[in-house]
Amino acid sequence: MFTKVLIANRGEIAVRIIRACRELGIETVAVHSEADKEALHVLMADEAYCIGPHSSAESYLKKTNLVATALKTGAEAIHPGYGFLAENAEFAEMCADHDITFIGPSPEAINKMGAKAVARETMAEAGVPIVPGTDGIIEEESEALKTAEEIGYPVIVKATAGGGGKGMRVAYEAGELKKAISMAQQEAATAFGNPGVYLEKFVEEPRHVEIQVMADSHGNVVHFGERDCSIQRRHQKLVEEAPSPALDEDIREAMGTAAVKAAQAVNYCGAGTVEFLLDKHKNFYFMEMNTRIQVEHPVTEEVTGIDLIKEQIKAAAGEKLSVSQEEIVIDGWAIECRINAENPEKGFMPSPGKLDMYLPPGGFGVRIDSAMYPGFTITPFYDSMVAKLIVRGKTREEAISRMKRALMEFVVEGVDTTIPFHLKLMENEDFINGTFDTSFLDKTKLL
Amino acid sequence: MFTKVLIANRGEIAVRIIRACRELGIETVAVHSEADKEALHVLMADEAYCIGPHSSAESYLKKTNLVATALKTGAEAIHPGYGFLAENAEFAEMCADHDITFIGPSPEAINKMGAKAVARETMAEAGVPIVPGTDGIIEEESEALKTAEEIGYPVIVKATAGGGGKGMRVAYEAGELKKAISMAQQEAATAFGNPGVYLEKFVEEPRHVEIQVMADSHGNVVHFGERDCSIQRRHQKLVEEAPSPALDEDIREAMGTAAVKAAQAVNYCGAGTVEFLLDKHKNFYFMEMNTRIQVEHPVTEEVTGIDLIKEQIKAAAGEKLSVSQEEIVIDGWAIECRINAENPEKGFMPSPGKLDMYLPPGGFGVRIDSAMYPGFTITPFYDSMVAKLIVRGKTREEAISRMKRALMEFVVEGVDTTIPFHLKLMENEDFINGTFDTSFLDKTKLL
Repeated sequence: MFTKVLIANRGEIAVRIIRACRELGIETVAVHSEADKEALHVLMADEAYCIGPHSSAESYLKKTNLVATALKTGAEAIHPGYGFLAENAEFAEMCADHDITFIGPSPEAINKMGAKAVARETMAEAGVPIVPGTDGIIEEESEALKTAEEIGYPVIVKATAGGGGKGMRVAYEAGELKKAISMAQQEAATAFGNPGVYLEKFVEEPRHVEIQVMADSHGNVVHFGERDCSIQRRHQKLVEEAPSPALDEDIREAMGTAAVKAAQAVNYCGAGTVEFLLDKHKNFYFMEMNTRIQVEHPVTEEVTGIDLIKEQIKAAAGEKLSVSQEEIVIDGWAIECRINAENPEKGFMPSPGKLDMYLPPGGFGVRIDSAMYPGFTITPFYDSMVAKLIVRGKTREEAISRMKRALMEFVVEGVDTTIPFHLKLMENEDFINGTFDTSFLDKTKLL
Repeated sequence: MFTKVLIANRGEIAVRIIRACRELGIETVAVHSEADKEALHVLMADEAYCIGPHSSAESYLKKTNLVATALKTGAEAIHPGYGFLAENAEFAEMCADHDITFIGPSPEAINKMGAKAVARETMAEAGVPIVPGTDGIIEEESEALKTAEEIGYPVIVKATAGGGGKGMRVAYEAGELKKAISMAQQEAATAFGNPGVYLEKFVEEPRHVEIQVMADSHGNVVHFGERDCSIQRRHQKLVEEAPSPALDEDIREAMGTAAVKAAQAVNYCGAGTVEFLLDKHKNFYFMEMNTRIQVEHPVTEEVTGIDLIKEQIKAAAGEKLSVSQEEIVIDGWAIECRINAENPEKGFMPSPGKLDMYLPPGGFGVRIDSAMYPGFTITPFYDSMVAKLIVRGKTREEAISRMKRALMEFVVEGVDTTIPFHLKLMENEDFINGTFDTSFLDKTKLL
């Protein structure tokens, strides 16, 4: 096992990784920008180093500074968290070049899943259901039109290098499709430096359901069941839960098996998530694989009892998985609300500032993964997610009532947060009934 | 179900009960002494009333003030928590006289278990193993000497009205026993107004293992497995865990069955705990039954996933138990450390004062039941326990490592606490190996 790990991240995920390391008896090295020198991860780690100014490009994304700090401190491994360099194959390679273990999959696996059109083909070959569409990048407009006729409108044009909604266009007939292709190509070229786009059937009113997988370097791959992340605002997840209210045992098993196949197809190692679209008829299709730990991993931990970050670190150190597929049992229900320093009544406008008062909720079934403390100042430079409130209950009903009371007792003074928004959501009939898809939040005004 | 409940208690247990009520959709009425007007339970409850000066006798123990406040506010039930009036049959009767539900067992059950010599006889009749000793109160010294010869020395003389170590004397031979009886009688007369004492075989180096039971008013009784509470300082529990490292499946089942019998023998309703002594040869004996919820109930909640306070309130409202014995499954390992505002290096001297800084630990598997908040002032008038830190893990080893890291990140500034003591304990070899009995802490200097 490693004796020291550098955490190439900030915020709650850096705190989360410090906790896992400490439980494993591993020393931790925090890095931070000048703006983050009083951040919680800096105060908690065994060592902390400033690696640049507030600009992410000059600090948390500065590969050479990260590797140099690892070498200087004697850290044998780097945990990238999520975001920043977590899915950057070049960074993974740079770590390997300096004999530092990158806690994540191989650069090859990152690349195969990062190029969306390549991932589609790889999955199709592995027998994972994909949304009908073109074979790879669109070379000729006529070929795209032909495919669209075959699979039927509406269709969606997506950038192969894309993500987060950029370079995506929906078309309901041939005229629209022609425009969509050229616009998506231009957008993709500008945003990602790669104009390649491909075409898929547009799945209407889908749910976003994803499977957590974990693989070791000995050929073992398991899955930990699903998370439902359909509560999104403009493609940004806000609330996640495990299990999904939309799945039955048959679909759960089929989806889990497909996710394991997906991981095996790229010789995966470590923690990953295979994201699926679930349509109204309960058909599911591969969307993408995130080759890192995700924000919403805690809901899976709560219903399985397994510490995914510790498991991920152990896998990176060459250990075998601590559990077999049969030993992974889903028990109870967990929900996570992302607590952002934003004003939900003003279009979720960021609300940085100093915390005059801070008291997280407690008691049975309540978990808080937070980057806040009393007197802490939230800066405007980074993601506005400052905490995750996670609850578990015997049933979904109990989890919802527990989340409500935990939100009610959460004290954050000095900045606006998404807490009032989540309280409204917990009282929304469609949410309570579990009848929602990814368009729910964009169609429903809660606050 | 009740619409409003009055909580006749303070500190973390009052907060705990407010949380359970809120999840059940029940309004809460807090009561407080003048010294507690800024206590967390007062700030959290829907309504709060001052019921007297700082003296417990004039506030939290003032039955008429409590009943009057319940009547005034329209609370249909009173939850007594633990301590104060929780095992006071007179108070339970006074509630009944005013048509207020006392959330606890009947006055008869409280009385039967409160008189220790009576409880012994009741248990013996019900087939629950008891420590060999006299049948009831010692009437003649000669009879006690005869019993002691039969069962063998050492023996212990105990007050029937006793508790907490008062009126207890150990004797290793006949001469000592004579003195022990008269001293224990005098002490009991002074402390409890009842000189009655009885005699038991003194179990050497026992473990304290207790079974959580729950009964409804429809005749159903279940148990939730055991807690090991052998880590005590002068008969005060400091650390509890579930399950017990000393039990195997056979003893667990036998002890659970005995506890259910004990509850059935007194027509029990609600939450209760049957305490046993476990000797070196794995024989167990009934010690006493606590007819209330206990401080250490969270460790059982963590390994069963069942909210015992909600279950207790539902039972008091006449509902059936939500689980059958078969549905109660013990999963993982939980440990609780009592966080007292005391200086463990100065003989656990109370350390009241203002909290300059307060930040509880968080993350996976960590639960905090606390009465503290930043800026809160801990007064010297009440019990010095101000929080409970509870962790759960897949295994005992994981739970210990998690407790260590949670203790390390717990920030309480302005008062001394037992946190450094618990950190030492988590690193003690005997604790790690699970090889300790109730004398462990009195024999071992940790700090």
